[in-house]
Amino acid sequence: MSRFEICFSGSGGQGLITAGKIFGEAVALHTNKHVVQTQSYGPESRGGASRSEVVISDEPIYYPKITRLDLLLALTQESVKKYLSNLKEGGILIIDPFGVKAVPSGNFKTYSIPVTLTSKHELGRAIFGNILALGAIAAITKIISIEALESSVLPNVPERFREDNRKALALGFKLGAEAAK
Amino acid sequence: MSRFEICFSGSGGQGLITAGKIFGEAVALHTNKHVVQTQSYGPESRGGASRSEVVISDEPIYYPKITRLDLLLALTQESVKKYLSNLKEGGILIIDPFGVKAVPSGNFKTYSIPVTLTSKHELGRAIFGNILALGAIAAITKIISIEALESSVLPNVPERFREDNRKALALGFKLGAEAAK
Repeated sequence: MSRFEICFSGSGGQGLITAGKIFGEAVALHTNKHVVQTQSYGPESRGGASRSEVVISDEPIYYPKITRLDLLLALTQESVKKYLSNLKEGGILIIDPFGVKAVPSGNFKTYSIPVTLTSKHELGRAIFGNILALGAIAAITKIISIEALESSVLPNVPERFREDNRKALALGFKLGAEAAK
Repeated sequence: MSRFEICFSGSGGQGLITAGKIFGEAVALHTNKHVVQTQSYGPESRGGASRSEVVISDEPIYYPKITRLDLLLALTQESVKKYLSNLKEGGILIIDPFGVKAVPSGNFKTYSIPVTLTSKHELGRAIFGNILALGAIAAITKIISIEALESSVLPNVPERFREDNRKALALGFKLGAEAAK
């Protein structure tokens, strides 16, 4: 892997910017890779779409914009529609079946990970879905260990939700590992 | 202003990534501009240097990397050394005299805003210096109002520190307004 590009996409309030930040920090801190993490906002994003991007590379990153995604996390149908064309051939698509009912097909691997409903049913609230998704991504890509990721999750979430986020990460990792089997 | 580039630089733990995130969100939410906010991490950043960047534009941003800075916030001498060459002619340099003892001179406007010491003396802790710096930047650049900025600061800081951060923002705005007079 010389360069690996990830896009976390969904709607505002789903914690995708936090997810990108945590993932970028964890990879930078626990591997020897270079990482650039970007979020873009525009007048068009007022509607509620939200995304963040992480580029990971063995070399310094001179072009931080995504060119062809290795992994697209899409929590909503809108985000599939908007970003799927950026996914490279043979890339990884992770969808949340709660938000993505029409599953696209094509020359990529698709994993359906119920992050929203698992968060809701196991932890009582949907808001841990972003961290659950990180766990799944770790299990599927093996870019980073669950322990390294956890050490970046905890300082980035409110204290009273640390235990829930720790559980969400483990749940996501388990779902991802099962899906990747 | 068609494109405005800002770099927030200093050392790890000074909250510069949070500052960039808050500033980017606030501008995107309260103006009609497009915003890209980026943080880069690399093996070299382990030493403790930290920076984040915000690019603001009237047009969609196709090149999110900074090319020539309009504003450099530098909280440490190291960050002055590292990023000053990116500041454009006539640009704005904001330094924290706590960390920057050797003040550079050149074809740019320099403002010395004691963010660390003001945070420490007025609020009891140095950690609010990042938000204080945002207040100063708002006053100096007039890119965004203090009210708009405040509405993005509060949800991005721990609940128990909201009031301190609100005060820090106001203190920074006052220092910035005085410096810009």
